[in-house]
Amino acid sequence: MKKTAPIGIFDSGIGGLTVANAIQKELPNEQLIYFGDIAHLPYGDKSTEAIKTYSKHITQFLLEKECKAIIIACNTASALAYQEVKRIVNKQALVINVIDPIVNYISNKYTDQKVGIIGTKGTIKSRVYVRKIKKINPTIDVTSLATPLLAPMIEEGFFNNKISQTIINNYLSTKSFKKINALVLGCTHYPLIKKEVENYYNGNCEIIDSAQIVAHKVKERLNKTELINPYKTSPHHFFVSDYTKAFEQSARLFFKGKIKLENINIWQ
Amino acid sequence: MKKTAPIGIFDSGIGGLTVANAIQKELPNEQLIYFGDIAHLPYGDKSTEAIKTYSKHITQFLLEKECKAIIIACNTASALAYQEVKRIVNKQALVINVIDPIVNYISNKYTDQKVGIIGTKGTIKSRVYVRKIKKINPTIDVTSLATPLLAPMIEEGFFNNKISQTIINNYLSTKSFKKINALVLGCTHYPLIKKEVENYYNGNCEIIDSAQIVAHKVKERLNKTELINPYKTSPHHFFVSDYTKAFEQSARLFFKGKIKLENINIWQ
Repeated sequence: MKKTAPIGIFDSGIGGLTVANAIQKELPNEQLIYFGDIAHLPYGDKSTEAIKTYSKHITQFLLEKECKAIIIACNTASALAYQEVKRIVNKQALVINVIDPIVNYISNKYTDQKVGIIGTKGTIKSRVYVRKIKKINPTIDVTSLATPLLAPMIEEGFFNNKISQTIINNYLSTKSFKKINALVLGCTHYPLIKKEVENYYNGNCEIIDSAQIVAHKVKERLNKTELINPYKTSPHHFFVSDYTKAFEQSARLFFKGKIKLENINIWQ
Repeated sequence: MKKTAPIGIFDSGIGGLTVANAIQKELPNEQLIYFGDIAHLPYGDKSTEAIKTYSKHITQFLLEKECKAIIIACNTASALAYQEVKRIVNKQALVINVIDPIVNYISNKYTDQKVGIIGTKGTIKSRVYVRKIKKINPTIDVTSLATPLLAPMIEEGFFNNKISQTIINNYLSTKSFKKINALVLGCTHYPLIKKEVENYYNGNCEIIDSAQIVAHKVKERLNKTELINPYKTSPHHFFVSDYTKAFEQSARLFFKGKIKLENINIWQ
């Protein structure tokens, strides 16, 4: 692995851009190669088998691009395909998912307290957050809820308005989510509604999104393996499995102005 | 083409089941072969190129099953891939989309009146309803609106509740939708929110969904070509490009009880 090699990041759509953006701020010298699997978006409702297959092909593509690290910037893929990705990568690159850094953060901080998790059907059904947190710190009371309309809502540009507030309030008014001390936004789309969720809890609950914490973890892992790029490298490169204006607009919003975007079919 | 051959129906997900259900009621002897392209669901936000490719592969699959008719039970695919499907089918089967029967219905009934269309981004951006209605009856004032959150909302089971009412009200309160005489539900998911839309207009606007009208058209076309099945045939057969519980539950709901469902990958 070379220090100047790129970091590969993938997600089903725009969600992973929140992670990519945080990584860029934390590690400004790194070149990012982003793969958005728009053709199969959203991942949240697909079968485990399908998510594994998509993740496998994308990982192979990113390895061909000689990535030194592969970031699974999607909670559903992190929940269902992390072991599969690690198996394919073997020792060719670092593999970082968006769940473990959050699990460690929660486990260290919330002893004897109550923590809520929201995410897609795939993520919540896998019970990965509950299992992993309980394993490290069994004193934590973990409650979770599938909130499948939030990702399409955000993907369609509904946030900071009456509709998003109604949907968010409806989900969070679930009985088991009263009196939680922290809430994990277990989907990389959700940072875009972080403020609305914070307003709902009136400052009485820490709202945790993965972007910042995962970016820290990436820096820590690259540092430990002496892989941080000392030089300013090539511009970021975005790939999508189906081109849509919505994706390009979001990518431009996050990465200011012109971006290098390519439509590629890695399945045929 | 044989009278006893099946009717092929396809959609990205559960939406087309509303059409399949209406066809079953109208033509109880027919065997239906349904293809739900769950792997690429939803179609509404994908590119024209992608929709054409998916529709082409599904059509070839249905032709291999010797279907005597192919029903494009999805407005987005009807808007973007009808010509492509007809080209592939050539004279091997009848091809019916879900748009033309509605266009004819509207054009005959609403001279000098105002009609609204709602649908996915793909359908509305194609302006197919506006162009086709104007071509047949230029006196009709046609106004259209993309309502991209409705399909995922329904696919997630949100209807007949506060959330669906808020989202529907928000979309329909658009200025240009005041004082319309008819509203076309231009997506095969939307029959599931027909009552809520009717309530919004308080009986002052005809709400038109494609299921019934398209089923009539299928019967008319089969009748004309002497292809109506005189015998009770084999049970319906459902294929999906990715298996999900949500699809199976909906299919069972529409087709009462046990169904023959198969997961198949026609892309590799």
